[in-house]
Amino acid sequence: MVTAPSKPPSTPRHVLSSRERSLIPVGMATILPHAAKQVRRIESQLLTQLSRWGYDEIILPTFEYLDVLAPGLEAELLETCYQFIDRTTGRTLLLRPDATAQVARTIAMGLTGSMLPQRLSYRTSVFRYEPEHAGRGREIFQVGAELIGTDDVAADCEVISLLIECLQAIGLRSFTISLGHVGFIKGLLMRSGLSALGQKRAEQAAAKKDLPRLEEVLAGERIAKSAARAIREAPELTGQEEVLERGRVLAAAEPMLMAPLERLAQLYHLLCAAGHRDSLLLDLGEFRGFDYYDGVVFDVFAAGVGAELGGGGRYDHLIGRFGRDLPSTGFALDVDRLFRAVDFPEDGADGARIDYLVAGPHRSVRRVIEVAGELRRSHRRVVQHTVKGGEQALFSNALAAGQAQRSHSVIVVGAPGMAPDHVALFEGLCPQETGRRNGRVHRPIMKKVAISALTSLARGARRRMKEHS
Amino acid sequence: MVTAPSKPPSTPRHVLSSRERSLIPVGMATILPHAAKQVRRIESQLLTQLSRWGYDEIILPTFEYLDVLAPGLEAELLETCYQFIDRTTGRTLLLRPDATAQVARTIAMGLTGSMLPQRLSYRTSVFRYEPEHAGRGREIFQVGAELIGTDDVAADCEVISLLIECLQAIGLRSFTISLGHVGFIKGLLMRSGLSALGQKRAEQAAAKKDLPRLEEVLAGERIAKSAARAIREAPELTGQEEVLERGRVLAAAEPMLMAPLERLAQLYHLLCAAGHRDSLLLDLGEFRGFDYYDGVVFDVFAAGVGAELGGGGRYDHLIGRFGRDLPSTGFALDVDRLFRAVDFPEDGADGARIDYLVAGPHRSVRRVIEVAGELRRSHRRVVQHTVKGGEQALFSNALAAGQAQRSHSVIVVGAPGMAPDHVALFEGLCPQETGRRNGRVHRPIMKKVAISALTSLARGARRRMKEHS
Repeated sequence: MVTAPSKPPSTPRHVLSSRERSLIPVGMATILPHAAKQVRRIESQLLTQLSRWGYDEIILPTFEYLDVLAPGLEAELLETCYQFIDRTTGRTLLLRPDATAQVARTIAMGLTGSMLPQRLSYRTSVFRYEPEHAGRGREIFQVGAELIGTDDVAADCEVISLLIECLQAIGLRSFTISLGHVGFIKGLLMRSGLSALGQKRAEQAAAKKDLPRLEEVLAGERIAKSAARAIREAPELTGQEEVLERGRVLAAAEPMLMAPLERLAQLYHLLCAAGHRDSLLLDLGEFRGFDYYDGVVFDVFAAGVGAELGGGGRYDHLIGRFGRDLPSTGFALDVDRLFRAVDFPEDGADGARIDYLVAGPHRSVRRVIEVAGELRRSHRRVVQHTVKGGEQALFSNALAAGQAQRSHSVIVVGAPGMAPDHVALFEGLCPQETGRRNGRVHRPIMKKVAISALTSLARGARRRMKEHS
Repeated sequence: MVTAPSKPPSTPRHVLSSRERSLIPVGMATILPHAAKQVRRIESQLLTQLSRWGYDEIILPTFEYLDVLAPGLEAELLETCYQFIDRTTGRTLLLRPDATAQVARTIAMGLTGSMLPQRLSYRTSVFRYEPEHAGRGREIFQVGAELIGTDDVAADCEVISLLIECLQAIGLRSFTISLGHVGFIKGLLMRSGLSALGQKRAEQAAAKKDLPRLEEVLAGERIAKSAARAIREAPELTGQEEVLERGRVLAAAEPMLMAPLERLAQLYHLLCAAGHRDSLLLDLGEFRGFDYYDGVVFDVFAAGVGAELGGGGRYDHLIGRFGRDLPSTGFALDVDRLFRAVDFPEDGADGARIDYLVAGPHRSVRRVIEVAGELRRSHRRVVQHTVKGGEQALFSNALAAGQAQRSHSVIVVGAPGMAPDHVALFEGLCPQETGRRNGRVHRPIMKKVAISALTSLARGARRRMKEHS
C-alpha cells in the first residue's frame, strides 16, 4: 500500500525532534489514488463473492464503550486498543480493535433479528497499537464474514470454501490455508498435568510456534517425558492425511483429543471432496492469537508476504459472553496484505488516467460542458478544461493539459475556423494499456469530427478496449 | 438509517442508571443489512459518477495529529472533535472531523504529485460531538470531491454540475442548490464600519439566518441606518436573476461587493446554460459554517429532510494554511441524509433475500456444495443448508429453512427415491419483488429437475427478473 512516510529515519540524538517533525501518526494509512483503486477493487470483489453466498453486509460503529465490548476481547488485545474518554458520558470509548467481537455484541443484543443461521459480512477498519517496526499498519482494513448459529461441520466447510473462493475472486494465484483445531493442543496440555498458568503460557508459546519457550514452560513444571514429547511434536505436525494419523497415535484414544481430530478429519475430507485439497495444509499446532476461538481454526498464507493474509475459526462461546450462546464461525481478510500479495496488471501507472479531456476557450464553456456530458453518458471518463490565453495557442495548450492529466484523447471545441457543430479530436496521447511515455508533448494528428458522431466513436473505442482486455 | 437504540428513554431520576444501561455511544451508527445495502448502493453510484468526471478516490487516515491538522479547522469545529493521546508519542490525536482539511493537508505535503488541477474524491466517516438531540449522528458518512488548483469560474461550474449529476444518479427526484458567495455579506459588513469582533458575530448570525441576533449586533455598534438596512436585507435575498439585480443596487458600485456579485452572476448563467436552472436558488445570505470558504458557496436541500444533504464551496486559501496556496473548490454529501431523502423501491424488505437455498441431508453435503457452487457461477445468491433429522422430514425441513432465510426457491438434493443426478425444485416461496408474506409455511409444487439443467434454469430466471426490473 502506498503509505506516506510517517517518520523520517531517526538517530538516537534526534528522536524527539524527528518525532516532532512527523506529520502522520505511525502506522496510519494514506492510500494514494492508484493504490486506492486496487484496494477498492479487492474490497468490492470480496463483497460480491460474500453476497453471492448469502452474506449480508452490516455497518457497525467505529468506536464503542469499552465496558460493553470488553467481554469479547482478551486482555492482551485490550492493551493494544486506542482508548479515550467520552465527553458526553465520561465513559471510556475504544476504536474497534476487532470486528468479530463487535458483530457478536450486535447479534447478542438481537439487533439483527432472530433468523438462524445468520450470515453477515463487513468491510471495515480495525485499530491497534502494533509494534512500530512490525511492518503492520495500525489502521487495518478488513473484509470478513460470520456464519452465526450453527455448529455443523458443514458450516466450517462453508466458511473455508467461501474464503478460498474469495481469494480466487481477487486473482490470488497461490495460497495455503493452514487448518487446525485449538482443541488438540489444549487437550495435550490439559492431559499433561500442567497448571492453569502453565497451560496459558504454553498456549501462547504454541501460538507463536516458539518451541524454545514451550520447552522452558514444560521443563519448569517437570512434565512427564512422554507427555512433553507429544506436546513438543504437535506444533510441527503439518501436512496432509498423515498428520491426522500421527495425531491419532499421540491422542492414544483419549476422547478429549480424539474429538477435535475427528472433527478436523471430517472437515478436511469435505473440503478435499469440494476440490480444495491443493490449498490446504493440516497443522495440528495451528492456534490463532484470539482466545475466543474454540474449535477449527485457520490462517491464510501466500508466497512473498511474510505474514498471514487473514484467518478465522469457530467461536462457539463468544456471543454467549454478551448474553446469548450461539455456535458460530467466520473469517477476516487483511485488505492491505491482499493488495500486496496480488499481482496487478500494470494498468494505469503509466497508461491513460482518463479517456478524454474536452477543452475549449472561455467563450465556449457551455459547449465544453455539453460535449463532456455526452461522452460521460457513454460511460467514458472525461475531464473538462477551459483554456486561458489567445486562440493561436489553443491546440498546444489543450494538448499540454491532456498530456498532464494523462488523457488518452483530447477534444477541442470552439477552435477558430472550425464549424460550430464540429470539434478537433486528437487520439493516442497516452496509451490505454501500459506503455512508455517519452515525456515530450508531441502533437498527434488532428481529425475534424462532427459532435453528433462523437458518441458512437466513444462507444466504439470503449468496445475495442474491452475486447483487448 | 436504521440505528440501534443508543439509550433508553431517561427520566430525571434515572439519568445515571439509564446511562449505565446504554450500550452504544450516542449518535453512533449501526446500519443493519437492509439499510446497509442501500447506503452502499448510494456510495457506489456517487463514486461511479465522480470517477466518470475524472475524480480519483483517495483514502486518508481515520485519525491525525491535532497540531498538524489544526490549521485547517476553525476553533468551533475543534471543540466538537474526538481527541485522545497517542500512546507512542504523547501527542494529541483527533478523529477526522472534516475531510476537506485532511485532503488540503495531503495536497500541501505533495503526496498526490504535482499535476494541476487535481481531482480527488473520497468516501469516509467524519466524527463530531453533535448536540445529543440534533437528530444528527456523530459518525457522519460522507462522499465528496475536491477540484484543486484552479480559480476559474468554470471550476465552480464543474463541481456544482457534478454535484447535481451525483444527486440525479442516486435517484433523488427533487432538490435545491442554494447558491451564494461569502464575499457579498462579508463586504456589506466590512463597508458598514463594524469592528472585527462585530463582523465575526454578525457573520455567525447570518450563517444561521438568525435575524434578531444580527439586529442586536448591528444595534450594539450603532451602525448607520442605510448600511444596517442592506445587511438586514441580504440574508433574505433568495430567488433567481432578480436577486442579482437587487444585490447590485445594495452594492452601489462598491468594487468589494460588485466582484462577488459578478462572479456569482457568471456562474449562475453558466449553470443555467447547462440546463440546471430549476435546481438553483440564488441566496445572497448563503454563508456556510466553515470559515475556510472564501468564494462561491452552496448547500443542498430536499423536501422532507430538515437539514442540508451536503454542500461545499471555494476555499482558495485553505491549502495555503498548510504551506502551499492553491485555489480550490469542492463539496461533500451526507450519505445518511441522502439515504433518508431517496425513495427506494420497496425491494427486499418483504421480498426474497436470496435466490436459492440448496439443502440436503448430511450424507449429501458434497452434492449440496457442488450444486450451490454451480448456481453461484450463474451469479445467483445461494445459501447452502444441511438438514438434520430423518429423511421423511427432509422436504418440510428444507422448505422451513428456505422460508426462514427468505429464499425465492429451494432445491433439495439427495432425497430418497430421487435419481442421483436429479434434484427437487420448489419455486416461489418468497416473491422476488415486493409482496405479502402470509407467515405460514406453505408447500409449493415440487418439480424434478436434472442437475445439468439447473444452470440454464437459473440463468433464465435471472434474465426474466432483470427484464421485469
